[in-house]
Amino acid sequence: MKMLPGVGVFGYGSLARAKISILQAVGFKVEAVWAPTMELAKEIAADLNIPYFTDQVDNVLLHQNVDLVCISNPPIMHSQVAAKALGIGKHVLCEKPAGLNELDAFKMVNAARYYPTLMSIMGHGLRFLPAFTKMKALLAEGYVGSVQLCEIRVHCGSLLRERYNWECDEVMGGGVLSILGCHMIDIITYVMNQRAVKVYGTLKTLVTKTAKIHGIRSITSDDFCTFQMEMSDGAFVAVTLNSHLPGVFSQEVLVVGTKGRLAVREADLYGQTSEMSKEEIIVADSLLISEQQRLGVSDAILKELPLPYFKGVLKLICTLKDAFERKEDKLSWDPEPISMAATFEDGLYIQTVLDAIRQSSQSRLWEKVAIMTEEPDPNPYLTSAAVNRSRHSITFT
Amino acid sequence: MKMLPGVGVFGYGSLARAKISILQAVGFKVEAVWAPTMELAKEIAADLNIPYFTDQVDNVLLHQNVDLVCISNPPIMHSQVAAKALGIGKHVLCEKPAGLNELDAFKMVNAARYYPTLMSIMGHGLRFLPAFTKMKALLAEGYVGSVQLCEIRVHCGSLLRERYNWECDEVMGGGVLSILGCHMIDIITYVMNQRAVKVYGTLKTLVTKTAKIHGIRSITSDDFCTFQMEMSDGAFVAVTLNSHLPGVFSQEVLVVGTKGRLAVREADLYGQTSEMSKEEIIVADSLLISEQQRLGVSDAILKELPLPYFKGVLKLICTLKDAFERKEDKLSWDPEPISMAATFEDGLYIQTVLDAIRQSSQSRLWEKVAIMTEEPDPNPYLTSAAVNRSRHSITFT
Repeated sequence: MKMLPGVGVFGYGSLARAKISILQAVGFKVEAVWAPTMELAKEIAADLNIPYFTDQVDNVLLHQNVDLVCISNPPIMHSQVAAKALGIGKHVLCEKPAGLNELDAFKMVNAARYYPTLMSIMGHGLRFLPAFTKMKALLAEGYVGSVQLCEIRVHCGSLLRERYNWECDEVMGGGVLSILGCHMIDIITYVMNQRAVKVYGTLKTLVTKTAKIHGIRSITSDDFCTFQMEMSDGAFVAVTLNSHLPGVFSQEVLVVGTKGRLAVREADLYGQTSEMSKEEIIVADSLLISEQQRLGVSDAILKELPLPYFKGVLKLICTLKDAFERKEDKLSWDPEPISMAATFEDGLYIQTVLDAIRQSSQSRLWEKVAIMTEEPDPNPYLTSAAVNRSRHSITFT
Repeated sequence: MKMLPGVGVFGYGSLARAKISILQAVGFKVEAVWAPTMELAKEIAADLNIPYFTDQVDNVLLHQNVDLVCISNPPIMHSQVAAKALGIGKHVLCEKPAGLNELDAFKMVNAARYYPTLMSIMGHGLRFLPAFTKMKALLAEGYVGSVQLCEIRVHCGSLLRERYNWECDEVMGGGVLSILGCHMIDIITYVMNQRAVKVYGTLKTLVTKTAKIHGIRSITSDDFCTFQMEMSDGAFVAVTLNSHLPGVFSQEVLVVGTKGRLAVREADLYGQTSEMSKEEIIVADSLLISEQQRLGVSDAILKELPLPYFKGVLKLICTLKDAFERKEDKLSWDPEPISMAATFEDGLYIQTVLDAIRQSSQSRLWEKVAIMTEEPDPNPYLTSAAVNRSRHSITFT
């Protein structure tokens, strides 16, 4: 059997722990882990049986056994770590979002373009969920006719944790739009094969402090969001994300066309065409709880990753494994199986849509989705002064 | 037992038939019915055992046995018939919406104000549904703390019928916003005790012709609508109305506050406060299918009026009966039991919100909800010409 590439993980939270457990369950060896302090790093390494731990980014990136870098730390570090990892020849699997903003995401795209032989994918697991794979195939085959409308609703409990962290801060990548909305933007773009061109959204922060988070820093991340998107082929998408239902997780993605509809509820796919008198179930997801137990997945992980996300990430990591196993050389991989994964280019697109929705919530206007094509001038003031000076010199001397 | 007031009904469609059946089941005698042609009037009278039928509006209004006028014909006639009925001393129960536009609704309000001893109520039955009555009471008691958010979703099949009629035309009162949205605006205003002050909405007409409606007149009424409202006490309301799910009826009204949430799903009420680990069921609606069968309610009626609406209308009509039975004189009534009914003033408010949402869908901007307080000049052009003339005469002669 082929030796799989060794994995280095950036992250220390419960989501990172869940990812590490899945990687290990699937057969990857996690060789090194990074956390912001040695105490945290030591703890996670001991808990999950990881041989090396550190609080220095470079120590993981340069670790000789690390071939694949799995980035699962706060969004503020995503862009920097991803670009650096690619720069020294490591494959990258990056947790969404692609950094904090479009510029971060654009830098990741540039790095990925520069090293096309390295794997650079975003961790949007839902694309690998059989219900969505089948939905995409049926949409392409014309099951619903031409797609006109998509309605999405996600209901869940609070995304906040016991202590103040980046998830409490809208600027640091927190909030239902960043955390859940980005998956919805990705999956709908993927299954409909249409991109958002204009967006309108409203973000609300109803909870600014909790029983456990009530210090001087109040919570600024959105806990309710409704947004609409106009897609490139004319379809309309309406999304509601509500994190005010403790104990609940329900997610429905409904696509309506001229001849019928398809709906993914949690991890199952339902459909009805105009010839049918009632809905049929098309995919009743075969990956049952028992399989999770076989993988040694704890309840804590399922709390972190609701079932469709857990199943999606598991499939994504199995597909990664398959891609590596198809080639003999340890670091080589076959792009075919993971061609359906979200690329860093997709990450930039999603980040741009997120930013446009946030902008719309401020302006209360529809905002265009304009993908960055070149890095903005890092210091427009200096440039314009220079330009002015040269113009002056031309004009007046 | 007191003799109940005789009822005259305007209407001939399946909704009117459903209303007549309920009125008769509860114990009212329907004395006269109006339809736009004698054939239709004769047919409905024969089917439902109504002694008098006509195609002349005044013949019902002036009928000596008619004391209560039940208006269930197309919205274009609501305002005119309601005002005329009040003018000749008849009680009025009017199907929503209050006419076609704010001006229609305003005329109804004026008539109602002019004849305060006559009953003038809008047929918003959901207010009488035990789930919503209890929700209102619990919100007032502070079950959810202070109300911050309301999320509403209605999923149903097409509202269009076999033939082209007013429901196909947005200008004539058709569309999911007019037909379902008006109930949602009413009920949320009622239970939250807050009015909409600003609204934003998007209306979509995905289906412009059907297998049976494909003549020269295309369908213009909206079949999908998403709108948001800012309420007077700061709460935010997000509504999605989707009529692209044939064979489905699902309606959820979810209210979130600082201490918990309440949700009416179909006709049942659920709740969870921050002290509870899971949702409790508060009202499991006691009016079962067997009771409908006892009332001789056919499947056709339930198709017309989904269960929560059927139950609400039934309760409303039972309450009307109670109001009349409390007073000895045939035409007298006790206002107390029906104080919770929607008035014509409520009808004007709802119509104003609907118009503002339609306006917003055009302008793509948030629109203020400004209730009409005086009738606009019927011919502003003539007035301004007159003003101009007088101004000229002052200036130039």
